[in-house]
Amino acid sequence: MNIAQTYITESAQCLLETNALAKCAYNEICIAISAMADSINNSEKNCNGVVPLKEPCYQKLEDHFGWYREKPLAILKKKGGPIDIYKLFSSKEEHLAVGIEFETGNISSAHRSMNKLSLGVRRKELDLAVLLLPMHKLSYYLTDRVSNYEELLPYFPLIADIPFIFIGFDVEKYSETATRLPKGSDGMSKRSLRKWKEQY
Amino acid sequence: MNIAQTYITESAQCLLETNALAKCAYNEICIAISAMADSINNSEKNCNGVVPLKEPCYQKLEDHFGWYREKPLAILKKKGGPIDIYKLFSSKEEHLAVGIEFETGNISSAHRSMNKLSLGVRRKELDLAVLLLPMHKLSYYLTDRVSNYEELLPYFPLIADIPFIFIGFDVEKYSETATRLPKGSDGMSKRSLRKWKEQY
Repeated sequence: MNIAQTYITESAQCLLETNALAKCAYNEICIAISAMADSINNSEKNCNGVVPLKEPCYQKLEDHFGWYREKPLAILKKKGGPIDIYKLFSSKEEHLAVGIEFETGNISSAHRSMNKLSLGVRRKELDLAVLLLPMHKLSYYLTDRVSNYEELLPYFPLIADIPFIFIGFDVEKYSETATRLPKGSDGMSKRSLRKWKEQY
Repeated sequence: MNIAQTYITESAQCLLETNALAKCAYNEICIAISAMADSINNSEKNCNGVVPLKEPCYQKLEDHFGWYREKPLAILKKKGGPIDIYKLFSSKEEHLAVGIEFETGNISSAHRSMNKLSLGVRRKELDLAVLLLPMHKLSYYLTDRVSNYEELLPYFPLIADIPFIFIGFDVEKYSETATRLPKGSDGMSKRSLRKWKEQY
C-alpha cells in the first residue's frame, strides 16, 4: 500500500519539521501503511472486505512500534467510543500524544472520527491527529459505502487550525487474479489486541 | 413539543440580540417546534417512529413561514447531501441565510449534520446554523439509535466560534395511552415538499 494523497495542516507541518517525536510518529505511520497489501482484486465492485486489509497496519503499529488500541478521551467520559490507535511519544525534554483513526465506516462515521480527533486535540489530550482513509478508487472495491479521502475532503478546512493530517492510501496494483479479501472478520489472526486499558 | 435545552454560541447570541432577521428566524423555529406532538407513547423502548414526529415542524416551516427543503451547499458541489431546511431572510438593509438540520439519524449522522452546517457558515453560505435534536429521554422512545442532544453535547465546543444554535426538544407528556407514531414514512401526508430546486 502507498500514500496517494495527504492533507497536512500548517501546524502539523511545523511539528513534522521541528519536532523529532512528530517526525518519528509520522515515520512509523508511513511504515505501517506500507505493510498493507500491495494489490487488490478488482473483478467487481465491493468485492473485498476492509477489516483484513487494515490488519497488517494495526499489527505493525501495535507489535512493532508499541502503539495502543482504543484509547478513551477523558472529555467523553467513556461515551462515544475511544481513539482507534494511540501512542505517547516521549523524550527527555517533552511528550507528544498522537491519535490515529483508521476510517473504514461510511461517510457519517468518518465525520465522527474527524470530530473525535479534533476534540482530542482542542482539549489538549492529543498533540497530533491522523486520519487514514482509502482513496476513492480503492474504496470502490472495498465493502459497500466505505468512505474515502475525496468524499471527506471538502470538510478538511474545519480542522485547518490544529495539528491534523489526513492520509489517503491506495494499492500499487489492481488485478482480477489477486486474492479477494474476506468480508467481516473472517480470516483474521487470533492475536489479542494491545488495548490501552492494559496500561491502567 | 417544547424546547428543553439550548446551546447558543456567543456570536449566535449576539445575532439574536441585535439582528431583527435572526430574531425572526429563531421565533419561527420555536413556533415550528411547538407544532410537534405534545405527548408520546412510552409503553416500550423505541416504540415510535421519528419521521411522523417531525413532519408538523417541517410543515409549519415550509407552508406557514416559507422555508425551503434540501438546499445544496455550493462548496459540496451536489455531493454529500443538502441542508435540510433553509430560508434567506431579507430586509431593506440586509440578508440573513439560515440553515437547519433536523437530526433523526444515528450519532454519526449527527456529526455529519453538524459539520455540514459548520462548513456552510465558515464558507459564508449560511449566516446562522441551527441543529435540532431530541433530548435523551425522548429519544429512548423513538426509532432505535436515533441520536440525542446529550450524546452530541461534548462536541458542541467544536463550533463555539461561529453563529450556531443547538436545540434539544422534548414532549410535555409521556403516556402509555398516547397513539404510537408509525415507523418509516407510514401515515405521512401526501403533500409535496417545498424543495429548494423550485427556486431555480
